[in-house]
Amino acid sequence: MTVLTDQYTAEREAVDAGLRAAAARLPAPAARIAAYHFGWTDEAGNPVEANSGKALRPLLTLLAAKTVSGDWRAAVPAAVAVEMVHNFSLIHDDIIDRDGLRRHRPTAWKVFGVNDAILVGDALHALAFEVIAEAGGDRAPAGAGLLAQTVRALIEGQLADTRFEDREHVELAECVAMSEAKTASLMGCATALGALFGGGTPEQVEALRDFGFRLGLAFQHVDDLLGIWGDPAVTGKAVYSDLRNRKKSLPVTAALGSGHADAPELAALYRAGVPLDEDGLRRAAALVESCGGRLASQRAAETLTAAAAEGLADRRLHGGAVAELTSLAASTVGRAW
Amino acid sequence: MTVLTDQYTAEREAVDAGLRAAAARLPAPAARIAAYHFGWTDEAGNPVEANSGKALRPLLTLLAAKTVSGDWRAAVPAAVAVEMVHNFSLIHDDIIDRDGLRRHRPTAWKVFGVNDAILVGDALHALAFEVIAEAGGDRAPAGAGLLAQTVRALIEGQLADTRFEDREHVELAECVAMSEAKTASLMGCATALGALFGGGTPEQVEALRDFGFRLGLAFQHVDDLLGIWGDPAVTGKAVYSDLRNRKKSLPVTAALGSGHADAPELAALYRAGVPLDEDGLRRAAALVESCGGRLASQRAAETLTAAAAEGLADRRLHGGAVAELTSLAASTVGRAW
Repeated sequence: MTVLTDQYTAEREAVDAGLRAAAARLPAPAARIAAYHFGWTDEAGNPVEANSGKALRPLLTLLAAKTVSGDWRAAVPAAVAVEMVHNFSLIHDDIIDRDGLRRHRPTAWKVFGVNDAILVGDALHALAFEVIAEAGGDRAPAGAGLLAQTVRALIEGQLADTRFEDREHVELAECVAMSEAKTASLMGCATALGALFGGGTPEQVEALRDFGFRLGLAFQHVDDLLGIWGDPAVTGKAVYSDLRNRKKSLPVTAALGSGHADAPELAALYRAGVPLDEDGLRRAAALVESCGGRLASQRAAETLTAAAAEGLADRRLHGGAVAELTSLAASTVGRAW
Repeated sequence: MTVLTDQYTAEREAVDAGLRAAAARLPAPAARIAAYHFGWTDEAGNPVEANSGKALRPLLTLLAAKTVSGDWRAAVPAAVAVEMVHNFSLIHDDIIDRDGLRRHRPTAWKVFGVNDAILVGDALHALAFEVIAEAGGDRAPAGAGLLAQTVRALIEGQLADTRFEDREHVELAECVAMSEAKTASLMGCATALGALFGGGTPEQVEALRDFGFRLGLAFQHVDDLLGIWGDPAVTGKAVYSDLRNRKKSLPVTAALGSGHADAPELAALYRAGVPLDEDGLRRAAALVESCGGRLASQRAAETLTAAAAEGLADRRLHGGAVAELTSLAASTVGRAW
């Protein structure tokens, strides 16, 4: 994935060091599972050349801090906390969704069992708040409050997501609200915490939160497009994977609710009791497109990314840092679909 | 159970109100499950005459606050946070241990499924930190730090507990360490947070933490005695329930490691591949007693309770409040066994 995150070596190293230092506090069995999950070790506990994921959220935190003060180092603990919350949530969601693969490797519960995976998720959750409390000084209460609200949103999103699976019809507005809760809220928290720990004013913190929130929703639209049309070599998922799972993603929900003449055929394919074969998958993808679902998500991603950038104007932010942040956003959302 | 908690009506009502106000912030499906778990509603969501458990930990928090300042109201948010952590941990542990009953009712995962129960536990966990962050003022970082360390200890204890089940031999020292992590740490956190939010000095906070920690370990000894010899009508568990489950509890571990001539017979009963019948259960209980396990836990509970009380001397605490706290401790640990 050609994301600009590759270029921020010092920032990435600082976050990595912070994550490892925090994880080292965990009781041994939990530390071992966390190290596997973060991609630092293999299943047997041997160190591996890390491919710890994009670490997009902590980088957003650090670049957000730069926009208010030029100094990203003060926000490293906030970036670590955000990444801890993200990963606690991934570990628990993988259990709930019975997902067996993440970052091309078996998920934590697959390797270490559900029980230990629940506990390691809990441990990372607490660790996030501990890091914020220790490093936050007089900003710690506001930081912890932001983090807690975000966890609540993540849970709300996950609860909605699991319920959508059992429902035949989901309104686009419900699907957007779910994506906001599951994805946008944490990215908004990432940039807000960066601004907070960077020493920003309340107005700047709010503006950066809006930025991350819009970017997060744009990101989800792109992710949902990739779940249908993404290159398996890049996404690590099978082609049409979201259609195979009959996921009620943003483009699919938009297509189903479009009123287009092809929508009933798509709905019928989603209702059918049997797995979709290759022809069925190709047909479903074509129907999402003919009903305008693909274009709707492409446009939403573009509009949200533009609105995110515009929201940072006239906030007395560091211009160079804002350019870095919006470039990162554009490169993230501009992932080939 | 004849515990003195019955007499602190104002304190109990304040905690109850705080818990309900915090839980009301949860997304609707999570709020419903939390209300069931806390004993406020039945499975269908109808309000019931609450029997929300003893609420021992929050009461310890409030009485600890009184020992440093005489004012317990300032510590209500801390008491709420402690009870939130306790209940998040119960919900997740019930999933992990596959426990189907709690407080004479089906557990949350039994009624609402494992997935939702994981998420509700997560929600209560975050809520605890949120309550501390909002109410703590300049004590919030220290409070959050205490809470996070405690969660880590709870996880360490639960990890150890699940591993003990698969091991034939557990040293008494390991069993004590596990009980400290699983039970004593949270009771130490309860009293420490009370002292902190009551405005105590760091030395007072530390002294109250030691008090709660020792009381917690004493409490676990008593709980383990009740798990063998407790009256089912009082404990809500079957007679000999811990022996039936071949739990390596404190008195059992002490008996197995006693070197007494009867210890090998007890070990053989614990190793046997078949469930113990009534004769086997009675025999196992008699062997724990003849090997000195019962007496060891009774003495440990008494010694720890006395040491807890002595540790509060010369701390410039309010004498009347200290008397209340030690009475509560004595009544808790003095539960009939």
